[in-house]
Amino acid sequence: MPEESIKHVTIIGTGLIGGTIGLALQKAYPNVEIAGVGRRESTLEAARGVGALTTAHLDPTEIVDQSDVVILATPVRAFEGYLEKIKDLLKPGCLVTDVGSTKADVVDKAERILGGGGPFVGSHPMAGNENKGPEFADTSLLDGALCIVTPTEQTPGELTDRAEDLWRALGMRTIRLDPVRHDDAVARVSHLPHILSCLLMAMPDDEQLQLAATGFGSMTRLAGGDPEMWRDIVLTNPEPILEAMNRYSDFIKEFAELLGSGDGQAVERFFTECRDRRRDSIGDS
Amino acid sequence: MPEESIKHVTIIGTGLIGGTIGLALQKAYPNVEIAGVGRRESTLEAARGVGALTTAHLDPTEIVDQSDVVILATPVRAFEGYLEKIKDLLKPGCLVTDVGSTKADVVDKAERILGGGGPFVGSHPMAGNENKGPEFADTSLLDGALCIVTPTEQTPGELTDRAEDLWRALGMRTIRLDPVRHDDAVARVSHLPHILSCLLMAMPDDEQLQLAATGFGSMTRLAGGDPEMWRDIVLTNPEPILEAMNRYSDFIKEFAELLGSGDGQAVERFFTECRDRRRDSIGDS
Repeated sequence: MPEESIKHVTIIGTGLIGGTIGLALQKAYPNVEIAGVGRRESTLEAARGVGALTTAHLDPTEIVDQSDVVILATPVRAFEGYLEKIKDLLKPGCLVTDVGSTKADVVDKAERILGGGGPFVGSHPMAGNENKGPEFADTSLLDGALCIVTPTEQTPGELTDRAEDLWRALGMRTIRLDPVRHDDAVARVSHLPHILSCLLMAMPDDEQLQLAATGFGSMTRLAGGDPEMWRDIVLTNPEPILEAMNRYSDFIKEFAELLGSGDGQAVERFFTECRDRRRDSIGDS
Repeated sequence: MPEESIKHVTIIGTGLIGGTIGLALQKAYPNVEIAGVGRRESTLEAARGVGALTTAHLDPTEIVDQSDVVILATPVRAFEGYLEKIKDLLKPGCLVTDVGSTKADVVDKAERILGGGGPFVGSHPMAGNENKGPEFADTSLLDGALCIVTPTEQTPGELTDRAEDLWRALGMRTIRLDPVRHDDAVARVSHLPHILSCLLMAMPDDEQLQLAATGFGSMTRLAGGDPEMWRDIVLTNPEPILEAMNRYSDFIKEFAELLGSGDGQAVERFFTECRDRRRDSIGDS
């Protein structure tokens, strides 16, 4: 999409990621207007305060007809209600996308409401941190991070191109992935890790917790994430998550057997393989 | 222990933590001599190169009779062999301690070899990172970190005091804990987290691993740790670790049931409780 053609964007949900996108859009498209939509005046005020929005609205219907792009950035289970509200107001050629961490359920609902041939294409910008709220908006979260765009068989190629161009203009790398394969993958690399981090937080009693050092701190960092956002993520991707949890439980059982065997060589080999796989993929840090 | 009375320290094992202690000792006791003992010339050379040692030795028997303090800093299963070698050479009043991450097994063996009434008292300085080798020695790893000292009923109080004074002189906080209670606690806050991190590294296939972002990176950071050190840690603390793994597997099962129920309020409550417990104990970072 040529830069000059994006003149107005509505961002529904102006928290950490919505606010970040608002800031990044203004860097990428200097004269763009950013309409922020939210449930709470206070969040909208905070998003305006950091310069993420040019206008703020409690009701999307008062502004969405002006937009070239609409981005859904609330917790995912709120998308459906907003899509119903705006579906008859979108101007021709408008691109509708989202930032949800789950895709099959989101894309199904969006295509049912808006139609399969557009204007919706799903996106998952893999950016964020454990902070909540537009006060923490930070365009460096997007720099070089990955955005997964999830067209279906019905999505026009041109629409997918426009979505990818948009995220790239904000500094992100993009790949395309089928929504179902996306959900299986993120269940393993994102949703399961979040749940494991939370469960670990419940393991030690108060006295034992006094002994927690940096390792425990980094393993429980994710548990500090926004409960409402994570509620919606896990509830919209239950099967892949349950499958990942099952597989992980089997891994625990296998390691318990290995440890019980007392086979030092095999134990060292296991730790070496895990370390090497991380070095070869994630790196050393 | 008055500072002036520590004139000579032998550190057996001059890797990341041994090297770090060598540097910290020289800051705390300006004229102290640090004899480093190791299996490999190259590691000893590297430890000398960063200034962690004043002399280097492949054989502890050539130097240990001069020491006021002996610190075992190899992987824990090598302690026994070294203690057998040095037991008849220690000078009166020498303090022997260690840096091992497991304590009941270590303390049992050390008291059997050196005697229960001294000169051994177990220590676990909770410092380190995923790097290996004295090149990464860094006294800031000790600053304000916790060192658990684990006397038994037989340990003279004066010896425990000296061990605590030593670690405090290096900038650490200290607490005393029974070796068995130590092992139960670290199984939950340190050993289990390490194993979970390693097992997570095996979850995604190569394609899914491409989607790993910062969350997966921080959850697998521990998996980058030294395989030999972790082999010895888990093999010297199997029962508490297996018990922690069992309990954790039960937590996974309970969360799977919760997720399967689709009860959004209960799911959000779970995430909120985990987040709040972390905020109240570890903090926000």
